Amino acid sequence: MNNPWDNWSGKPPPAKSGHSHRPAPQPDSDPPARAPAAPKHELRLYGFNAVQAVFAQRPQAIRKLYLTEQRIAQLQPLLAWCVQQRIGYRVVEESDLGKLAASSHHEGVVADVLKRDPEPLSEWLQSLPTGPVVALWLDGVGNPHNFGAILRSAAHFGVAAVLLPENSTLSLSGAAARVAEGGAEHVPLVRMGSQQETMTQLRGAGFQLAATVVSGGNDLFATSLPSRLIYVMGAEAEGMDAHLAQRSDLRLSIPGSGAVESLNVAAATAVFLSRWASTHNPHCM
Amino acid sequence: MNNPWDNWSGKPPPAKSGHSHRPAPQPDSDPPARAPAAPKHELRLYGFNAVQAVFAQRPQAIRKLYLTEQRIAQLQPLLAWCVQQRIGYRVVEESDLGKLAASSHHEGVVADVLKRDPEPLSEWLQSLPTGPVVALWLDGVGNPHNFGAILRSAAHFGVAAVLLPENSTLSLSGAAARVAEGGAEHVPLVRMGSQQETMTQLRGAGFQLAATVVSGGNDLFATSLPSRLIYVMGAEAEGMDAHLAQRSDLRLSIPGSGAVESLNVAAATAVFLSRWASTHNPHCM
Repeated sequence: MNNPWDNWSGKPPPAKSGHSHRPAPQPDSDPPARAPAAPKHELRLYGFNAVQAVFAQRPQAIRKLYLTEQRIAQLQPLLAWCVQQRIGYRVVEESDLGKLAASSHHEGVVADVLKRDPEPLSEWLQSLPTGPVVALWLDGVGNPHNFGAILRSAAHFGVAAVLLPENSTLSLSGAAARVAEGGAEHVPLVRMGSQQETMTQLRGAGFQLAATVVSGGNDLFATSLPSRLIYVMGAEAEGMDAHLAQRSDLRLSIPGSGAVESLNVAAATAVFLSRWASTHNPHCM
Repeated sequence: MNNPWDNWSGKPPPAKSGHSHRPAPQPDSDPPARAPAAPKHELRLYGFNAVQAVFAQRPQAIRKLYLTEQRIAQLQPLLAWCVQQRIGYRVVEESDLGKLAASSHHEGVVADVLKRDPEPLSEWLQSLPTGPVVALWLDGVGNPHNFGAILRSAAHFGVAAVLLPENSTLSLSGAAARVAEGGAEHVPLVRMGSQQETMTQLRGAGFQLAATVVSGGNDLFATSLPSRLIYVMGAEAEGMDAHLAQRSDLRLSIPGSGAVESLNVAAATAVFLSRWASTHNPHCM
């Protein structure tokens, strides 16, 4: 048997004549609460755009699919793929999806997919084109909602990678992928080595590092930005590590009224990226 | 008795000698689950910066206060105010704050405060200075998290108001105020009349309206922005109302890679505001 999950999910429903790629799956009577948790090398994704983006980018990564009846029509191509590839899928109730996703924000679809491990920095650097490139170094971002929001903006502005510190516990979760609205599939995650070594490697590849500081940096809008740039984004509450900011080539701030202490880190990221893109990537639309 | 809540909360603890403005409140043994829900003209706020912002801007609005023991030191000035004004306050457990706030994001403090009703548009227009002014028209934003994030960015960039449609159900909630990190106290909410009448009034006050569209608008970064500008922000999923976009003076987009359908509405708002501020408000830091 090609797919050991077939037994659990019940056999794929027969394709209707004349609609060989449009299966009409039947709900199974087994309670989906019995579905095992995703294995360690898999990630349980949820959210319509998050799941659709995996299907568009790397359909082979999909291992299991759960959806509500209401989503069948919109997900026909994905269901046809599941039938063709003998990937188990189930039509379930809203409440079951809530349990599977451990979230009410499942938007009618949950999928177990193969995880992608972050690339080593040296590999990523070798794969880069010459010319303008922007990437994000997330120094302390910890909130999955902010991480997802950053990935969505990063995908929008064509960011080449999100760099994660050596010892960061941050990794793509179902919640982050849902908030990223598919953006997580478009932005490679890269694992950095030691801070010193990473800076040397990045500078060797022609990058300048810009620390993003809440106040006291140069005005983002009055500063000419290098064409190969790494924005270093600090933690939500603590902001940038002072030592890292000091060792960066630039320190940039987004001028504000002072009414609030700072912008949210995801909002700030969008502003920083838009400024770079408007200078170096004017035709990305 | 000045404050009917005094009975419920227990009498304020006596000030220590030499620390007349630094009370040391004692936890009360009554379960705080007995605390009544905030009355209709009050709003139950939570989050450290949200509560501190009300204390800084309009301390008279505070009606009740609940906090954890860990927050006592940081909130001494607010506690001293409560003692002086005979405002009831309680030191409670984390879990009790969770119940009071109906959220785990209370950050150790919950307060019932007087609501501020949105101002009528005509009053707000009369209060405006001449010269550069930017405001946001929220046409369909419904998610309290996005609303809060927009208020935080609006406060940062010195936005003069957030305009709400006649029939909008959007209003400031505890969740939105927490995400706004104090920004809600700095940005007036304004209630609009009919769309036609509102447009006439805004144009009469020298404003141009810019519809923000996901694609097909003029490039934000290649467009000269008017000094008196209303950005019209559409709903999270549906985007801008096409009819309203058509009736606006400008249609603007933030160029992107196309990898994701759009930016999140709060991220887009931050980018739109930063662009206006960098042109018309260069010294707002």
